[in-house]
Amino acid sequence: MMIKGIPGGVTAAAGFQAAHCAAGIKYRGRDDMAMLYSADPCAVAGTFTSNVVKAAPVVWDRRIVQNVKTAQAVVVNAGIANAATGPAGMATCEQTAALAAAALGIPAESVLLGSTGVIGPGLPMDRIAAGVSMMAGTLSGTLEAGTAASRAIMTTDTVNKECAVTFELPAADGTGSVRVTMGGMSKGSGMIHPNMCTMLGYITTDCAVDQALMQRALEDVVRDTFNMISVDGDTSTNDTLLLLANGRAGNAAIASEGAEYAIFREALFTVCRALAVKMAGDGEGATRLIEMRVCGADTKENARKLARSVVSSSLVKAMVFGKDANCGRILCALGYAGVEFDPAVIELYLVGEGETLCFYRDGCVQAFDEDKALEILSEAQVRFRCDMRMGDREATAWGCDLTYDYVKINGDYRS
Amino acid sequence: MMIKGIPGGVTAAAGFQAAHCAAGIKYRGRDDMAMLYSADPCAVAGTFTSNVVKAAPVVWDRRIVQNVKTAQAVVVNAGIANAATGPAGMATCEQTAALAAAALGIPAESVLLGSTGVIGPGLPMDRIAAGVSMMAGTLSGTLEAGTAASRAIMTTDTVNKECAVTFELPAADGTGSVRVTMGGMSKGSGMIHPNMCTMLGYITTDCAVDQALMQRALEDVVRDTFNMISVDGDTSTNDTLLLLANGRAGNAAIASEGAEYAIFREALFTVCRALAVKMAGDGEGATRLIEMRVCGADTKENARKLARSVVSSSLVKAMVFGKDANCGRILCALGYAGVEFDPAVIELYLVGEGETLCFYRDGCVQAFDEDKALEILSEAQVRFRCDMRMGDREATAWGCDLTYDYVKINGDYRS
Repeated sequence: MMIKGIPGGVTAAAGFQAAHCAAGIKYRGRDDMAMLYSADPCAVAGTFTSNVVKAAPVVWDRRIVQNVKTAQAVVVNAGIANAATGPAGMATCEQTAALAAAALGIPAESVLLGSTGVIGPGLPMDRIAAGVSMMAGTLSGTLEAGTAASRAIMTTDTVNKECAVTFELPAADGTGSVRVTMGGMSKGSGMIHPNMCTMLGYITTDCAVDQALMQRALEDVVRDTFNMISVDGDTSTNDTLLLLANGRAGNAAIASEGAEYAIFREALFTVCRALAVKMAGDGEGATRLIEMRVCGADTKENARKLARSVVSSSLVKAMVFGKDANCGRILCALGYAGVEFDPAVIELYLVGEGETLCFYRDGCVQAFDEDKALEILSEAQVRFRCDMRMGDREATAWGCDLTYDYVKINGDYRS
Repeated sequence: MMIKGIPGGVTAAAGFQAAHCAAGIKYRGRDDMAMLYSADPCAVAGTFTSNVVKAAPVVWDRRIVQNVKTAQAVVVNAGIANAATGPAGMATCEQTAALAAAALGIPAESVLLGSTGVIGPGLPMDRIAAGVSMMAGTLSGTLEAGTAASRAIMTTDTVNKECAVTFELPAADGTGSVRVTMGGMSKGSGMIHPNMCTMLGYITTDCAVDQALMQRALEDVVRDTFNMISVDGDTSTNDTLLLLANGRAGNAAIASEGAEYAIFREALFTVCRALAVKMAGDGEGATRLIEMRVCGADTKENARKLARSVVSSSLVKAMVFGKDANCGRILCALGYAGVEFDPAVIELYLVGEGETLCFYRDGCVQAFDEDKALEILSEAQVRFRCDMRMGDREATAWGCDLTYDYVKINGDYRS
């Protein structure tokens, strides 16, 4: 399928604008709020944290996604999570949405919210209000505005994360095809261990697509992208991924699971995977991305479980940091993934840019060239592959190494 | 019940001897093998790793516990795990057991084995043989011999772990009561995150008790002790806990679940909990023990899940290291434990030696004295308590903080 990467993020698609500001919520000397806006009402899909403890903005957004199903704006802040804040936290959401709605001339129930940061404290409503007001007056559809927004939502992230793609779909008026664009931004640096901190992701597209289909595609794609860097259930109180579609591209609206839906889903997969891998590689304190590909599994879900277990293992993460080819740890993490398999038949590989080393086969750790292993483990992306030899299903998970800096960042996060 | 702590470990109970030696398997300049022996055949119970990948000595021991049900000796080595070693690893077990059996004049199927260390390499059979031979000639029933054995099985442990208790049971001859002794040793320093490295535990008693009852008591007690420092399923390839009973105390053999069984079970619980807490506190790189007590849960299993989720959280561990009263992280870990509860009714406390601070109640993080919190978080044992306010079940889990040294130890474990 013709999914083509292009520059930009949330403002790449037609009709989407973004703004950012330094509201002084917790950080000083940097932007900490972002706003997205579409003059056209958007169909909206979303997936949210499975944590029993849900932050106020998660409760707010879920209600809109499930009941209203359309939206025009998103207001995000970094620094304070607005979680474990009780009724006061919900009141903050209502006020923020009302202020943004008034400033933008849209209904309050068209305003989605996102927060990331420390759990417990309430949001300073005066600063939020000032930020909303400032941003409503500085919205811009330039690519730069999208990039600035992706920077404003960072917490311990070291780089901003955005990406965009285009693809062709049949035109609504039947005259050939139109160019459709999809772009997104995300933040989340705590993915080194999956229960870390908040993942926020926002994807915009000018595609015309049925809301229920959008929601289906999003849930489907998330399983093999964002959820492959975050073990199911080990999610923060604030995790939120939203997809907004304003239909501006002029394509014939996608209303069923045909060829056009497949293209749309593929574009969404491309954007989600790119953002997810960026988050994994920017894990707190991380120096290297870890990619674990499990092939030859009997079921897709088992392949996912096995791959996730490896990238979630502290021992595997520490071993990649130390460039130590201690493959027994990968084997061990596969073994406690909750999947039955025969250790005597599986094969485990370290996959380098130029060469692949076999770590384990026939039930035994294999002799390998230690210098070569050190070389491969020094690459920016460390890739392992395991062939379960049980079937033809596969899955890939991404993580990063565990470093001194991770401990430093998380030993003193609040200050 | 009258369970009394006494000095000693695996040689505290009558009729048990221990030996140790420096076999040079991997470490230099320290003991790395231990042997336990009872001249009387012992009933034996055991629990083993749930990892799909099982080390050769685990396969060997399980067969004895399940089929033979008696034993007289245990041979343990530190440094190499004899895991992922295929048929050669099993052959090593057979040879080691045969050598020990010949040296001790007992059947090979009476010799239990244990290994801990790096996964992959084979054991150097010549050194193992020399070690077995040396130890068979230096067995001793002194408390010192037991202590030396507990030191010999250490890997990254910083302190040896042993404990012993006595209790009274009715005499076999009906003339009043006899004194029964139970003692144990364990190793395992990787419990900072539960999938770490090997937990080995050996408990000896001179109690006369039915083998099936012993097995039942062990499985029962493990759930609230060793398994509360190790999340279910997240176990190494080698985890082994063995209980040997030689009946030397002269008590009327415990054959059913009456009052005597309850005393025996309580003694076993006391020994297992003491060893488990020692392991948690000696986690790799750890500076402080974390205790999480969950009360007011609807079921025991939910209480266990909640407590384990908190002590397993990297964020909670890092926060304790940093003495940062970031209670939102505890709340978050409770929220993804896989247990339904109402965040608006639970209460969360930091329990100090002298004072208890309320962190969270009524759905909100509470204001608390930061200096007081810092003081409590600086205690050697950091204790949290959560009241779920759903019922009357409770459970306690133990862990330790996540430190720079953890990363250092695990970033370069093999060298």
